[in-house]
Amino acid sequence: MSRFLASLLLALLPAAAQVPPPVVSPEVHADGRVTFRLRAPNATKVQLSREGGVRVEMQKGEHDIWSVTTEPLAPNLYSYSFIVDGISILDPVNSAIKPNLLNPQSLVHVPGSTPWDLKDVPHGSVHRHFYRSGIVGDQRDFYVYTPPGYDASAKTSYPTLYLLHGFSDDASGWTSVGRAHIILDNLIAEGKVKPMLVVMPLGYGAPEIVVRNGPGFRNPELVKRNFDRFRDALLQEVIPLVEKTYRVSKDRTQRAIAGLSMGGSEALLTGLNALDRFAWVGAFSSGGLPPEFEKNFPSLDAKANEQLKLLWIACGKDDRLIGLNRNLIDWLNSRKIRHTWIETEGAHTWMVWRRYLADFTPLLFR
Amino acid sequence: MSRFLASLLLALLPAAAQVPPPVVSPEVHADGRVTFRLRAPNATKVQLSREGGVRVEMQKGEHDIWSVTTEPLAPNLYSYSFIVDGISILDPVNSAIKPNLLNPQSLVHVPGSTPWDLKDVPHGSVHRHFYRSGIVGDQRDFYVYTPPGYDASAKTSYPTLYLLHGFSDDASGWTSVGRAHIILDNLIAEGKVKPMLVVMPLGYGAPEIVVRNGPGFRNPELVKRNFDRFRDALLQEVIPLVEKTYRVSKDRTQRAIAGLSMGGSEALLTGLNALDRFAWVGAFSSGGLPPEFEKNFPSLDAKANEQLKLLWIACGKDDRLIGLNRNLIDWLNSRKIRHTWIETEGAHTWMVWRRYLADFTPLLFR
Repeated sequence: MSRFLASLLLALLPAAAQVPPPVVSPEVHADGRVTFRLRAPNATKVQLSREGGVRVEMQKGEHDIWSVTTEPLAPNLYSYSFIVDGISILDPVNSAIKPNLLNPQSLVHVPGSTPWDLKDVPHGSVHRHFYRSGIVGDQRDFYVYTPPGYDASAKTSYPTLYLLHGFSDDASGWTSVGRAHIILDNLIAEGKVKPMLVVMPLGYGAPEIVVRNGPGFRNPELVKRNFDRFRDALLQEVIPLVEKTYRVSKDRTQRAIAGLSMGGSEALLTGLNALDRFAWVGAFSSGGLPPEFEKNFPSLDAKANEQLKLLWIACGKDDRLIGLNRNLIDWLNSRKIRHTWIETEGAHTWMVWRRYLADFTPLLFR
Repeated sequence: MSRFLASLLLALLPAAAQVPPPVVSPEVHADGRVTFRLRAPNATKVQLSREGGVRVEMQKGEHDIWSVTTEPLAPNLYSYSFIVDGISILDPVNSAIKPNLLNPQSLVHVPGSTPWDLKDVPHGSVHRHFYRSGIVGDQRDFYVYTPPGYDASAKTSYPTLYLLHGFSDDASGWTSVGRAHIILDNLIAEGKVKPMLVVMPLGYGAPEIVVRNGPGFRNPELVKRNFDRFRDALLQEVIPLVEKTYRVSKDRTQRAIAGLSMGGSEALLTGLNALDRFAWVGAFSSGGLPPEFEKNFPSLDAKANEQLKLLWIACGKDDRLIGLNRNLIDWLNSRKIRHTWIETEGAHTWMVWRRYLADFTPLLFR
């Protein structure tokens, strides 16, 4: 059928019988701008909420399709959602989704030559393990990245980074959203990072902290139980399981612990109180840390400098948690505890944490 | 503040300032009924679309919340979405999501004592591998389930089931939606299934078959390329990688291949044309199989009965693909090729496929 006839036929059909054109969203342009679209026939107000951006209005066009185009975005993954008359929904035509226990979102990838872009380099593997935690009292999982060429039967013992997700993420967060396996693959291929295992446990010592409409971090007892039992499950359950299953060194100088947000606090609370286990500690945009630092770290003083190979703390200047992190740095200074403190651009986003992981891992096990 | 004062204060506030109550959805009742809810202020029509159910209208109640309650559902996972004025969306307050390359949906779990419910039994692990396919020309992944107690350095060689997903699933489909690892854990614990590895590759030989608004299975050349290159990638890339990495037997009697829908056709096309590699073939609700069976299986005749330990074919009576499957059975009968043919209740759903996996795996490697 000619295009003319098709148009004629379409014009003659009653409106209800016309099939609306498919919605394309998100559309990533060559210069990094992204057009988001949503068909929403009866909505009165539609907004785009994007990771690292302010909420913006979308405009209604033909066929009930609302749209907006961003400025050029730096190569990265960005989560987003549409706010339709006040209700946040995922993009219905985008199958890329950020898993999250409270707030799953859609994902858009602006490609580029970054450490978190998939490249044609040797790849490691990601292993998901399941076990019953006696300490927490539930069935749970943890993930283990093994580097390219890892051989369970070889004589080599690898160092291990324990890498902790943030509040509302699940144990897959650092791979599915953070792309830790891709970052490690790329930096190992460039010779910038030593081959290591990365263990990504579930970060909840009290899983009831992460139920929808629950108290979350507003209940100090729950927060304490969450941190304490997380630490106990990591030290008494996960680490022994990992060290039984994989060819990893049990030397403290070959163990690092780091995390983001809630996981940053967990890395500090667990690592700085167990320097017999860890020599490397990283805290990215830490949050939820009780502000009484003496109580958090009762025996921490300048003697720790002999054991700590690295205490690396970073936070974005636009992060609502920058104040807590600066207070922590003041306290560390008052205790003469050596550390690296980096204030970067950015807010409380995965764009910041992917960069931190790419900056932090090259420093480890040197 | 007393409850009375709070009510009074709330009554005095203008409506816009009142925070609406949180939406709870889905709510699973003790008897298996499920209440689904969605806040949608300006919608004129909201429906529930549920796996295995007909589309039903939802009713608008207080606070702009639409809802519907089902009849009691059998213990299982069900995917669903809401149709808001014709647009399909995920449940915005449910973080359980079925990954899918074309049609992600929300998931609800009706618990019970089934093979696909998590139990306190020894658990295997799920390993995700990444590699560049020279045959397809892309970076891709595959998943491997190893049973409880699997030891890479032990002398035991395990049998292997190659398990293929359906059209629009990704390589995670059989674990994230099909719960293959949970089913295997449970049936191995009961002694009903022999400990085996389950390899779950990406099922696309031509990934362009699975783009949104693309031709999909309407282009026969694309369909043929998809099947052919899938087979080549499996036989020449995935199987060698698996057999290099894991302690698995290379004996044909220790290799099985099975799949659902598109994957059922792939299991037939690959397995029945490579009986030197596979002795066990399973096809669940097969779809997309070209109807010229002689062309699909040019050298298949009754001699295959000497090599085939099992050819197990099943389809639901309410599946739109039942006709194709019955035609296939007629053709196998005409060729005197021994097989097991099972017509079950059910349609083209994961509830059917979880059951098939639980019925099929106990028959393997006996």
